[in-house]
Amino acid sequence: MRKELHQRIDQLYQEMVDIRRYLHQHPELSFKEEKTAKYIADFYDDLGIPYQTKVGGNGVIATLKGGKPGKTVALRADFDALPIQDEKDVPYKSKVDGVMHACGHDGHTATLLSLAKALLSFQDELPGTVVFLHQHAEEYAPGGAKPIVESGALNHVDAVFGTHLWATTPLGVMQTSKDVFMAGADRFDITIQGKGGHGGYPHETNDAIIIGAEVITQLQKIISRRIDPLQTAVLTIGIFEAGNAFNIIADKAKLVGTMRYLDTRIQDQVIEEMERIINGVCVANGATYKLNYEKGYPPLINHAEEAELVLLASKNVPEITTREEVVPVMGGEDFGYYLLEKPGTYFFTGAQKEGNEYPHHHPKFDIDERALPIAAKTLMEAYLAYQEK
Amino acid sequence: MRKELHQRIDQLYQEMVDIRRYLHQHPELSFKEEKTAKYIADFYDDLGIPYQTKVGGNGVIATLKGGKPGKTVALRADFDALPIQDEKDVPYKSKVDGVMHACGHDGHTATLLSLAKALLSFQDELPGTVVFLHQHAEEYAPGGAKPIVESGALNHVDAVFGTHLWATTPLGVMQTSKDVFMAGADRFDITIQGKGGHGGYPHETNDAIIIGAEVITQLQKIISRRIDPLQTAVLTIGIFEAGNAFNIIADKAKLVGTMRYLDTRIQDQVIEEMERIINGVCVANGATYKLNYEKGYPPLINHAEEAELVLLASKNVPEITTREEVVPVMGGEDFGYYLLEKPGTYFFTGAQKEGNEYPHHHPKFDIDERALPIAAKTLMEAYLAYQEK
Amino acid sequence: MRKELHQRIDQLYQEMVDIRRYLHQHPELSFKEEKTAKYIADFYDDLGIPYQTKVGGNGVIATLKGGKPGKTVALRADFDALPIQDEKDVPYKSKVDGVMHACGHDGHTATLLSLAKALLSFQDELPGTVVFLHQHAEEYAPGGAKPIVESGALNHVDAVFGTHLWATTPLGVMQTSKDVFMAGADRFDITIQGKGGHGGYPHETNDAIIIGAEVITQLQKIISRRIDPLQTAVLTIGIFEAGNAFNIIADKAKLVGTMRYLDTRIQDQVIEEMERIINGVCVANGATYKLNYEKGYPPLINHAEEAELVLLASKNVPEITTREEVVPVMGGEDFGYYLLEKPGTYFFTGAQKEGNEYPHHHPKFDIDERALPIAAKTLMEAYLAYQEK
Amino acid sequence: MRKELHQRIDQLYQEMVDIRRYLHQHPELSFKEEKTAKYIADFYDDLGIPYQTKVGGNGVIATLKGGKPGKTVALRADFDALPIQDEKDVPYKSKVDGVMHACGHDGHTATLLSLAKALLSFQDELPGTVVFLHQHAEEYAPGGAKPIVESGALNHVDAVFGTHLWATTPLGVMQTSKDVFMAGADRFDITIQGKGGHGGYPHETNDAIIIGAEVITQLQKIISRRIDPLQTAVLTIGIFEAGNAFNIIADKAKLVGTMRYLDTRIQDQVIEEMERIINGVCVANGATYKLNYEKGYPPLINHAEEAELVLLASKNVPEITTREEVVPVMGGEDFGYYLLEKPGTYFFTGAQKEGNEYPHHHPKFDIDERALPIAAKTLMEAYLAYQEK
Repeated sequence: MRKELHQRIDQLYQEMVDIRRYLHQHPELSFKEEKTAKYIADFYDDLGIPYQTKVGGNGVIATLKGGKPGKTVALRADFDALPIQDEKDVPYKSKVDGVMHACGHDGHTATLLSLAKALLSFQDELPGTVVFLHQHAEEYAPGGAKPIVESGALNHVDAVFGTHLWATTPLGVMQTSKDVFMAGADRFDITIQGKGGHGGYPHETNDAIIIGAEVITQLQKIISRRIDPLQTAVLTIGIFEAGNAFNIIADKAKLVGTMRYLDTRIQDQVIEEMERIINGVCVANGATYKLNYEKGYPPLINHAEEAELVLLASKNVPEITTREEVVPVMGGEDFGYYLLEKPGTYFFTGAQKEGNEYPHHHPKFDIDERALPIAAKTLMEAYLAYQEK
Repeated sequence: MRKELHQRIDQLYQEMVDIRRYLHQHPELSFKEEKTAKYIADFYDDLGIPYQTKVGGNGVIATLKGGKPGKTVALRADFDALPIQDEKDVPYKSKVDGVMHACGHDGHTATLLSLAKALLSFQDELPGTVVFLHQHAEEYAPGGAKPIVESGALNHVDAVFGTHLWATTPLGVMQTSKDVFMAGADRFDITIQGKGGHGGYPHETNDAIIIGAEVITQLQKIISRRIDPLQTAVLTIGIFEAGNAFNIIADKAKLVGTMRYLDTRIQDQVIEEMERIINGVCVANGATYKLNYEKGYPPLINHAEEAELVLLASKNVPEITTREEVVPVMGGEDFGYYLLEKPGTYFFTGAQKEGNEYPHHHPKFDIDERALPIAAKTLMEAYLAYQEK
Repeated sequence: MRKELHQRIDQLYQEMVDIRRYLHQHPELSFKEEKTAKYIADFYDDLGIPYQTKVGGNGVIATLKGGKPGKTVALRADFDALPIQDEKDVPYKSKVDGVMHACGHDGHTATLLSLAKALLSFQDELPGTVVFLHQHAEEYAPGGAKPIVESGALNHVDAVFGTHLWATTPLGVMQTSKDVFMAGADRFDITIQGKGGHGGYPHETNDAIIIGAEVITQLQKIISRRIDPLQTAVLTIGIFEAGNAFNIIADKAKLVGTMRYLDTRIQDQVIEEMERIINGVCVANGATYKLNYEKGYPPLINHAEEAELVLLASKNVPEITTREEVVPVMGGEDFGYYLLEKPGTYFFTGAQKEGNEYPHHHPKFDIDERALPIAAKTLMEAYLAYQEK
Repeated sequence: MRKELHQRIDQLYQEMVDIRRYLHQHPELSFKEEKTAKYIADFYDDLGIPYQTKVGGNGVIATLKGGKPGKTVALRADFDALPIQDEKDVPYKSKVDGVMHACGHDGHTATLLSLAKALLSFQDELPGTVVFLHQHAEEYAPGGAKPIVESGALNHVDAVFGTHLWATTPLGVMQTSKDVFMAGADRFDITIQGKGGHGGYPHETNDAIIIGAEVITQLQKIISRRIDPLQTAVLTIGIFEAGNAFNIIADKAKLVGTMRYLDTRIQDQVIEEMERIINGVCVANGATYKLNYEKGYPPLINHAEEAELVLLASKNVPEITTREEVVPVMGGEDFGYYLLEKPGTYFFTGAQKEGNEYPHHHPKFDIDERALPIAAKTLMEAYLAYQEK
């Protein structure tokens, strides 16, 4: 059956590309991806595979029960797009102004739908159950994974696998990790409240820009001195916004940033240290502040056994010539929520397009579509391997 | 004659108020104050006093030659308004959205026009010549004073006097200085160019926000350690603008600010030190920068003899009960350009309105109109006193 | 009499030099200047002028009552030396290892003693009373002036004058001010208590050196932003002492410094701001601190009338060719204590030695001894002028 | 034979303790450990085992050729002490003032000597050759390992094993790593040259203390922003030394510190970034500097196969109840030099003494001597296991 399944996936290549390009032209923002959810549901209608919609939001979960006994394995594909203007010059360019599938979720969806179609042809011979988990809103915290988990829709699932088409990894390369694979990613904003006034009379004011500048300088020490040097954390201020006039001292400064980490204990320590430093700098300057810290996606921590299993299973995918265990990626992913509940593993499927080296989230981002069947086959092999575990 | 002139000015009080209120309702921005210039010219037309228009821009200069020999004394009033939304609740509120006479230049103009009318009545008895110098564009560097001086229109003038209705000084108080009276005021912007990138990969970027923060912290030392402690300088960053997304490292940071000083040697030193510090911080961070420094109005330095003369002359104005020599004001004024060329003095005429304590440039700024005749009388007395010098 | 007094002083020149050189060879440290006090007392014994010793410490006060009625005027000379090794190559080099008259107090003493001798010759004709105020311990806070004032020994005095031989001002130049003439000077030390530990495990420690460094950077803002820009303050950290081993994180950092100011309100503000900043930085870092702030000599503020009087009186000293009103000197002087109680003025007598441009407190400091009779004459003229006031 | 060897080691326990205590009482500083070298040599003389002395300094290498064919395995013990005053209250307290075996090298030496004695008893049955590598000067860079390697004395060796008695790890626990086990450790000093002067005249000076403070603050960014967040580096300033008087601005500031890292590429990057930052801060301040950076011991990177081998072999030591793979220790060790040339592994032998929790290099440091035979047995098992590899 394995061989025939691979052939079937290959046969579906053109349809896979068509689906991906259709979705690419019709991107929808996180939490607003209703037409895409409808598209997915319609696809399963056509196949006659039963599904639920509105799972934890716009999520769609289809279930294919195989003819043979076995475990229940969920395969996940996300389907939201980004608030980016498509600047590629291709026939399948986004038709929606300011919205673009700049991260490959269109490809994930096409991959999973086609895989469902392929597996359906062999339903009787399939062991266990395959759950096609189409997740909305990966790009925007709090994301879709959390409410899907909380909906209970995955309670009966034994393991979860997922892949990301990765535009900076060459075709034929598969990457994963047996431990932390992607970072925890939080968002925060800090508002410093000083006292504004005439630019020539600083002593009658409390210059919020200087205080904001100090906060930034002092926050560096959390990373350089407070965190265990063997641990990883990144504290980035992405936005500094203060003042309206060159000759008026600003009363308020706003800093907005992100914190990345691999270990939850570090997350709590960084928050505590941030609070301490911002408070101290404000005490030193007689100012006040508000720190609004939003914990985002947790670190994505693969389960070692399942990672090993995917690495081995991927050897059945002849297009995969290289498999690598890599250091964590500092980007976030809400797939991590599934792994807090269930065994499983996330991996990257190399999808670098020759001549297009733009990274994810770039206005000219694109992928090599030949990666789609590779992703489908690897997910399928993971599902099968897990049955034999 | 002196007594009659005072009476004449008192008789013109209502007209003075009417002019002021009309102008208050019809404010115009710096360099665009064409209708106001026309209003002034029309006024002199009506009086039959000869004048020039378009002096150094929208400036209007009227000349009243007295019947007796004497010196030529210019009296200056500026007439531009500010880009501020009038938020007062008064019948004479600004009729122009977003534009307001929030610094009292309407009052200055009403004062000088009415003084011209009053003096005209006594033309034959007047010694020397009075030049009514209506200056445009005081609020916005490079200002109107400089081109007026450069136009040569004041070449024949012997001395220049001017006053500012001062909303934070009580009615009946007159303030001036025998030396520096108002600060030099410059504007600069600094653009730091780093390298942007993913918020989780700082080592692949060059974080412009951190560099900007350092520049601000380091600039403090110019004031605290580089400037002679007996000298005065203020370096204010009024705007810090950088970054667009919480999770993307900013490639660029823009700082905009002002420098105030009382001594031109300090100005040059501060510019040099700024350049050195910004450059050093950028060298330390492998970044580049652009410093765009615009020298603004010079310090307004009164001439000691003329200041003494105005202080004495003001004793002839019975409404002035207090005269004070004050420390310099850190705000700028382009009246200083006149004093670089001619003897003269600038002074404040107390105009604080009871119950309205909003400072200059505030959306609720207002003045006590009874200050107008006081200002007119003091200018007149200065002109007369200078004749006797 | 005036002319004869000048001649008498000129006749005493060689003796004046001899006294100065004797004292120069026998310097004594502040509060330990007992032999010098004895030398002074012996001198008055020889003259038969009555004196008190042990005034407020090692102070010696001699009193010469003139034959004519008049006011009581104190003339002050200090007589302590410094813990500096004399590196000059002159016959009158210090004979005491590590102690040196590196500030000219030897000259002050010689001047005043000789002036006493000169005045004695004309006792009958002298108006009022001259108090020869020989003060110990000017160089080391809390100084000698304060206990002398507190002893009550000057209660009957009407005015106090004093001069400093000034090695960076040319011979023939006299300098003073009608207002603040010398700065207030305080001393402080800050001890930061963090937590020491292994240099490779910063997160288990609390690095006192980093905290100390931050304190220094943050203190700059007091001068650059908190003090009225028209005021003067200097905050200098002269010593930073922390750590014993390159690979051990220091638990403690010690900063020692001085604060200079011209206005007592600024002094209190700076202390308050220092406390606030140091506390805030320690809060930000989870450390503790101890600030030990010792108020030193107050600003020396001349009385305007007496300053005017000395400036005029100095015109009777033909050797003085230039008299200057100067900006305040940032060094401290406990003469200021006298001026808090009594009218008076302090001034500099130019004493720059050609070819020796070393400043006060330098191991090669020296003065042009021809300044001694000039100082004596100016003090005498001040005394006489004050009688006529 | 194995069992007998274990018994033999147990029999030697008292002698082992005696040797350790003798050495403990007679500590010698790095590079000056001549009597200790003599003691070791004498021991081998007594045993009749041939040895070399003066290997790369004070190193002593003894060689025991077994009766059976096999590989040559070096077992290393270091024997220098530290410049620390022994503050323990024990009969075997150091007899040398200010010098102490505060790191357990006395125990290492006793262990290796006794192991030699034990193995000698079974010489005929031993496979291959055992090299007893007694290294001098581990505590003080550049250390003894490097010259020993360079001497060629280990050229014929197939593998090197070594252990450290570890006072913070409980008895019965053995710790190692299959990769980096101990950090690279460098030393540097930075001298900032500004310009000194009077504490009240900062603008005439160039305050080296402020510049030094800035350097420290700015260096934090190397760790927080320039280093890959998945990498490890620590930059500690252990000493800040500047200034002599509270009221004199310091012309010079000296910072002395250490850098720890796990990856040599990071080492070079940190040095480059340090140079860039210090230079930039000096450019910003118009100062100059000298950075003296001494590369110290490289990271100690265990060879994965040999680490695995030791972990397995240690199972033959019944006293070892726990074996742990641990994260790297941030302290340095020159054992790393051997591992750059030869396969091998370094490990910790738990030696925590109940009731004495003082860390290494503490004046009250001590070990549980029962760890000595455990260390001996584990080294022996490593040697035997390597023969079978």
